Amino acid sequence: MWRDLRPVGRHPDSGGYRRYAWTAADADCRAWFKDQAEARGLAYEVDRNGNQWAWLGDPAAGDAVVTGSHLDSVPDGGAFDGPLGVVSSFAALDELRRRGARFAKPLALVNFGDEEGARFGLACVGSRLTAGHLTVEQAHRLTDGDGITLPRAMEAAGYDPDAIGPDPERLGRIGAFVELHVEQGRALDLSGDRVGIASAIWPHGRWRFDFRGEANHAGTTRLVDRRDPMLPYAETVLAARREARLAGAVATFGKISVEPNGVNAVPSLVRGWLDSRAADQQSLDQVVGGVEKAAREYATAHGVDLDVVRESFTPVVEFDHALRDELARLLGKDTGRNDAGLQVPVLGTGAGHDAGILSGSIPTAMLFVRNPTGVSHSPAEYAAEDDCVAGVLALADVLEGLACT
Amino acid sequence: MWRDLRPVGRHPDSGGYRRYAWTAADADCRAWFKDQAEARGLAYEVDRNGNQWAWLGDPAAGDAVVTGSHLDSVPDGGAFDGPLGVVSSFAALDELRRRGARFAKPLALVNFGDEEGARFGLACVGSRLTAGHLTVEQAHRLTDGDGITLPRAMEAAGYDPDAIGPDPERLGRIGAFVELHVEQGRALDLSGDRVGIASAIWPHGRWRFDFRGEANHAGTTRLVDRRDPMLPYAETVLAARREARLAGAVATFGKISVEPNGVNAVPSLVRGWLDSRAADQQSLDQVVGGVEKAAREYATAHGVDLDVVRESFTPVVEFDHALRDELARLLGKDTGRNDAGLQVPVLGTGAGHDAGILSGSIPTAMLFVRNPTGVSHSPAEYAAEDDCVAGVLALADVLEGLACT
Repeated sequence: MWRDLRPVGRHPDSGGYRRYAWTAADADCRAWFKDQAEARGLAYEVDRNGNQWAWLGDPAAGDAVVTGSHLDSVPDGGAFDGPLGVVSSFAALDELRRRGARFAKPLALVNFGDEEGARFGLACVGSRLTAGHLTVEQAHRLTDGDGITLPRAMEAAGYDPDAIGPDPERLGRIGAFVELHVEQGRALDLSGDRVGIASAIWPHGRWRFDFRGEANHAGTTRLVDRRDPMLPYAETVLAARREARLAGAVATFGKISVEPNGVNAVPSLVRGWLDSRAADQQSLDQVVGGVEKAAREYATAHGVDLDVVRESFTPVVEFDHALRDELARLLGKDTGRNDAGLQVPVLGTGAGHDAGILSGSIPTAMLFVRNPTGVSHSPAEYAAEDDCVAGVLALADVLEGLACT
Repeated sequence: MWRDLRPVGRHPDSGGYRRYAWTAADADCRAWFKDQAEARGLAYEVDRNGNQWAWLGDPAAGDAVVTGSHLDSVPDGGAFDGPLGVVSSFAALDELRRRGARFAKPLALVNFGDEEGARFGLACVGSRLTAGHLTVEQAHRLTDGDGITLPRAMEAAGYDPDAIGPDPERLGRIGAFVELHVEQGRALDLSGDRVGIASAIWPHGRWRFDFRGEANHAGTTRLVDRRDPMLPYAETVLAARREARLAGAVATFGKISVEPNGVNAVPSLVRGWLDSRAADQQSLDQVVGGVEKAAREYATAHGVDLDVVRESFTPVVEFDHALRDELARLLGKDTGRNDAGLQVPVLGTGAGHDAGILSGSIPTAMLFVRNPTGVSHSPAEYAAEDDCVAGVLALADVLEGLACT
């Protein structure tokens, strides 16, 4: 399975994947999914929002167990983020059939569309639409870097953009959704485990810091006469690292925009975006509040104006506790790692997922597979073959426990 | 004169000027120059490199006195940088005729093309070509942001790009070139003088700092596992300010480029450009050496690789000492500011000028007019009317002393 999928959308220079929603690379990934479904005799369908489903048993029976992830990628992303969950779903079904498992509930495998949001700037479009977290009007306004709207892009890919919208009937037939994903940190590597269970998705947000100074000639303006916004920006970058370290959180300035951005010009505007996430709301407030306070002091000291705008925010997502405990029980019997309470590690994550979106509508859980370097959203993203096999077996155990007699 | 020139190429939103070489706004400025020359009965000509000349007397007589500057602008530049020198040249001629001055040498007024380099990225193209500091091959390769080459742009503006090249015969007929320019700092404001004389153009250069780390997920990568190039970049920005302050120089990080420049991605590359200038070579070496040493330490501490490339460098330009002293003598008799040696302030400048280019070929001097805020390359650039009049009278005194009997 991996062999067919591996070359799709891989850029020859970077070695990274460029599988953006509704592009040719995405279409190839989707054709792969359909082939895999049909090769296993599963009932293939595409829902109104372009998500792909492969059913074993009658969807109308209800209380279905669903597993899957996404096949699209960030720019120059790795091979595992998304595809590992989809490939493992098919492999887990193969394993259950090998075991001769008897299904008491319908089982579905799913590929959610446009999870990474690399093309239209919003993540989890497929699951957001289905769950009603994104209105049709909002979706119709989404536009890519070339000015192509989401409806036009879907149309060009052969889908009907007028059909999109919330799908409560579909969600009502699902009893549990389990998403397997490569870990995007090193917690499992540090604890020595192959597989873990998600407890929660950390609260996270993005804040835009606009430092406004005065454009001037870099050769002739005395230092004391400058109002250079690059200086408080630089101090704020360092403050963000400091505050995050103190709170055991993460904070990143990864995007910047400078005007006029000329080598011989003191900038008039330095705009920096802060991404910060923490295990709980209080820690996140502490980090962002600390960074903003420091930034205001730096800006004042340099005669620079500062505006801080929160551009997005997602509160903490706690996965369904009963389902999480059920997964721990199902996996504990095999891994037998210790004999006190939980036998597989339960960990939080700073990344958003379709499972996080759906957790507001249906019981949802996530499995993580060890990532030895923790590198993610990069061609260097990696999971060892043994760990991937352990992930498939764990997913098979979970599906067997949830769906079989 | 000002009234006709003022609206040309002024952007309605920013209030700044966008007079780029060989554009419609540039053509309007050039038409204005031709009109002014012809209204005064001067012999108008365009040289092989597109520079405009207006002659009083016979150019072939030799030992001509030339004054002028440029009419093009940086993006959203001010009204004075360039045009003040051209307008003052015509006004000084009017003043000399009012005085009934008798010319013993030919006098020429000049508008050099493409001084700011805003369109093709290289400053002083007109004077560089004339002085042979830019080869025809190099000039033919210059390309603007829309992919239009300099030859195509000249052609579209009605000029012959095949004619460009060095013009030693023209330079051989010039005995002295004096450029009047609005000051781009606050030295005259601080000393309380309306007009000053240039001593030298500071040595200056541009260095590119490439900090290469590792792209990673901003939400899931632990701080200790990151190699984030934004952090040593920020520390280096602050080091540059510190080193410049210690050396009495200037240093600026005004341009930056980040990859992948995503809000939720630790950058793989932060590329920052350092512009630094100082009164002498030793001070400049001290600043740039100090910044580079600090940057290497910061990069190492963050596990980030650093390459530093010097992209351009211009050594100190000392203006002709005899001509400079002659200007000081000519102006001293009027200003009578003090009775010890020099009677008008002589000051260095961090900015490049056509006068700096030509100083290698012919005796060259510069006059500066007070700029109360020091703001330059910005719509807020300003000179008071009284100071502009003082500049015209000073230029008239200089031209009278150099060219008249």
